[in-house]
Amino acid sequence: MVATTLSPLAPASFPALPPIAGVALGTIAAGVKYKDRPDVTFVTFPAGTVVAGVFTRSLTPGAPILWCRDALEASGGRARALVVNAGNSNVFTGQEGYDASAETARAAARLLDCPAEDVMVSSTGVIGVPLPYEKIVNALPSVALSEDNWEAAARGIMTTDTFAKGATATAEIGGVTVAINGIAKGSGMIEPNMATMLAYVVTDAAIGRQALDAVLRDVNERSFNAITVDSDTSTSDTLLLFATGTAGNAPVADAASPALAGFRAALEAVMGDLARQVVRDGEGAQKFITVTVRGAEDGAAARRVAKIIANSPLVKTAIAGEDANWGRIVMAVGKSYEKVNPRGLTVTFGGQRLTEDGRVRPGYDEAELTRHLKGQEIDIEVDLAVGGGEATVWTCDLTHGYIAINADYRS
Amino acid sequence: MVATTLSPLAPASFPALPPIAGVALGTIAAGVKYKDRPDVTFVTFPAGTVVAGVFTRSLTPGAPILWCRDALEASGGRARALVVNAGNSNVFTGQEGYDASAETARAAARLLDCPAEDVMVSSTGVIGVPLPYEKIVNALPSVALSEDNWEAAARGIMTTDTFAKGATATAEIGGVTVAINGIAKGSGMIEPNMATMLAYVVTDAAIGRQALDAVLRDVNERSFNAITVDSDTSTSDTLLLFATGTAGNAPVADAASPALAGFRAALEAVMGDLARQVVRDGEGAQKFITVTVRGAEDGAAARRVAKIIANSPLVKTAIAGEDANWGRIVMAVGKSYEKVNPRGLTVTFGGQRLTEDGRVRPGYDEAELTRHLKGQEIDIEVDLAVGGGEATVWTCDLTHGYIAINADYRS
Repeated sequence: MVATTLSPLAPASFPALPPIAGVALGTIAAGVKYKDRPDVTFVTFPAGTVVAGVFTRSLTPGAPILWCRDALEASGGRARALVVNAGNSNVFTGQEGYDASAETARAAARLLDCPAEDVMVSSTGVIGVPLPYEKIVNALPSVALSEDNWEAAARGIMTTDTFAKGATATAEIGGVTVAINGIAKGSGMIEPNMATMLAYVVTDAAIGRQALDAVLRDVNERSFNAITVDSDTSTSDTLLLFATGTAGNAPVADAASPALAGFRAALEAVMGDLARQVVRDGEGAQKFITVTVRGAEDGAAARRVAKIIANSPLVKTAIAGEDANWGRIVMAVGKSYEKVNPRGLTVTFGGQRLTEDGRVRPGYDEAELTRHLKGQEIDIEVDLAVGGGEATVWTCDLTHGYIAINADYRS
Repeated sequence: MVATTLSPLAPASFPALPPIAGVALGTIAAGVKYKDRPDVTFVTFPAGTVVAGVFTRSLTPGAPILWCRDALEASGGRARALVVNAGNSNVFTGQEGYDASAETARAAARLLDCPAEDVMVSSTGVIGVPLPYEKIVNALPSVALSEDNWEAAARGIMTTDTFAKGATATAEIGGVTVAINGIAKGSGMIEPNMATMLAYVVTDAAIGRQALDAVLRDVNERSFNAITVDSDTSTSDTLLLFATGTAGNAPVADAASPALAGFRAALEAVMGDLARQVVRDGEGAQKFITVTVRGAEDGAAARRVAKIIANSPLVKTAIAGEDANWGRIVMAVGKSYEKVNPRGLTVTFGGQRLTEDGRVRPGYDEAELTRHLKGQEIDIEVDLAVGGGEATVWTCDLTHGYIAINADYRS
């Protein structure tokens, strides 16, 4: 591991996440890989908790992904516990890898006297190394659980992250206040489908499994699926939303119910905040970049163009160099192969339009542009001048830090 | 411009390119952008020369691309001259940009007393800056042309390239020996459709326009379209194949003619050599990487997986760090979304297979693997265990040098 210093884009502090009744968390140093820090995180949920999940679309997913999918199918969406280890992803580890995830789940299930399929497991870290699951199994009974351990849990799931990521919000459902807490980790191998590597969101709202699943997938599109660090899709990406139902609201079964409007907005606030924190901790990141594409054929086309811009190494290095090389944006738009009107195409940096009539806008203020680029928050807007499609994607710049971290990760 | 040192992967020397009768080349310092070097290259061809071209698929192509497409259509594939300037790509420069390319072509046409559409033009360099074409127009009459200036021409078209790129071969068509000379430039913004930025190949063979076009497109798939440096597609990519017909062979009109077998192989040798030289000059490159994918559903799927591996920042940084992090290959295969049999998938580095049964192969020789990774030529083979599709792609590693060059290019 490379010693990493705190990202310059990190929030000032970890937010205060309130307890959620019946949700207890704890971490322990089990020595899975790291020597001197907690690397196993254990979370337990009250009986009656339902869970919805979104996982990586990778066709070489890790064993924990396979376990979670099987478990969700077997349980119909029940959850009593979550076990996460950091430092070893249990990916490309064969049948033994799957068995290692299953044994981990069984160990937690024994402690809670529940079926193994009620236990979700995640692993994050290096690929291809057998997971020493016995260390996790042996450590679980010793984990000290508490409803106040949210920050410790956020810290326990970190790998190359330089800060712990948490977010919280409240909403009303039918006049009853419900809480939403979320934690996440991730800083490299970040690109949609899913983007996070790992994120866990917990609410005390009573929401039916199918409605929970529908709301999660919808909000995911505008949060974790709208970020990218390096275009590399993890084999371990996992997003789980747990609902304990302890808040006392009348259970909601229909995702389209107006009663969920406030909840949906609060969930988007939490998930969007976590997703943007992942970008702010992007490996080597010095600048936080917001790319908004308008005027595309439709929303999906706008998203694809925004992603192409956000993933272009030449765009990302130009931003790292605080260089107003907006021509690279034009290049990136061109290689998206999405419909564009080259003569109507406009590129805007920090609110200042730089082009008109298919060329540079005479008299644009280069000094103002330079000032914007020297800041930490970069705003790029592109109008394709074709239709009404719009999308926003968040990313970071590509710096020497990214190379330093990733050219020396495994060794 | 960043001062760049010679790529460690550069060939020992520029090859000896023989004269091709009637093809004269010259360069001149016109001050288009650079102050102290030739930046305009002028090549003239004998009457009767035909030309075939492949251009970037970018939807925001440069004005020279638009000019060449128009000219090829108007002339039906005649060519008498080529004018290339370095330092300014004449991209996203509006109607004035197109007019600048046209004026450049007209200036060359006046000197040769030919129609303007018989003149191909290319520009390479920064995007979005109006091209001072008057400097080119004024300089052209002063260019000293010679049949021996191939290396000078290869040098004149360079931008961030650290070495001039040339290749040559001969073939027989119907018992007559024909020559093929090629030059190319490119080191960043390199990814297929097309990949080179700029490449010009000249033969004295007599081959009909349609046959020339078909052979060029076929060979292009296994040369310039099989390389990638940074996944960024240039707005200026141009590949032109000129055939003067002066060798004396009986003209060939059918691309499928057996008479062209030797020519096709020699053309692939020249174009493949040039394409691999572009990779060897990839911005910041320290290692030359060959990625071969076998066992894919078909050839196109194999190509897509090989490209995904070759473009993965995490794979490229691992190679830069001489780190045997083959797990990142598995990750890249997974995110291709192409069919793979995870249990049959094998990853081979430097001829040594590292996996079996969907996990690491016990007892593989880590020391031998490390030795391979410390070399300059890295061979990665992946078998997807699904079908018979196969493809090879060439790329380079991602290093601090790439960041240094691209975070400070325009300023």
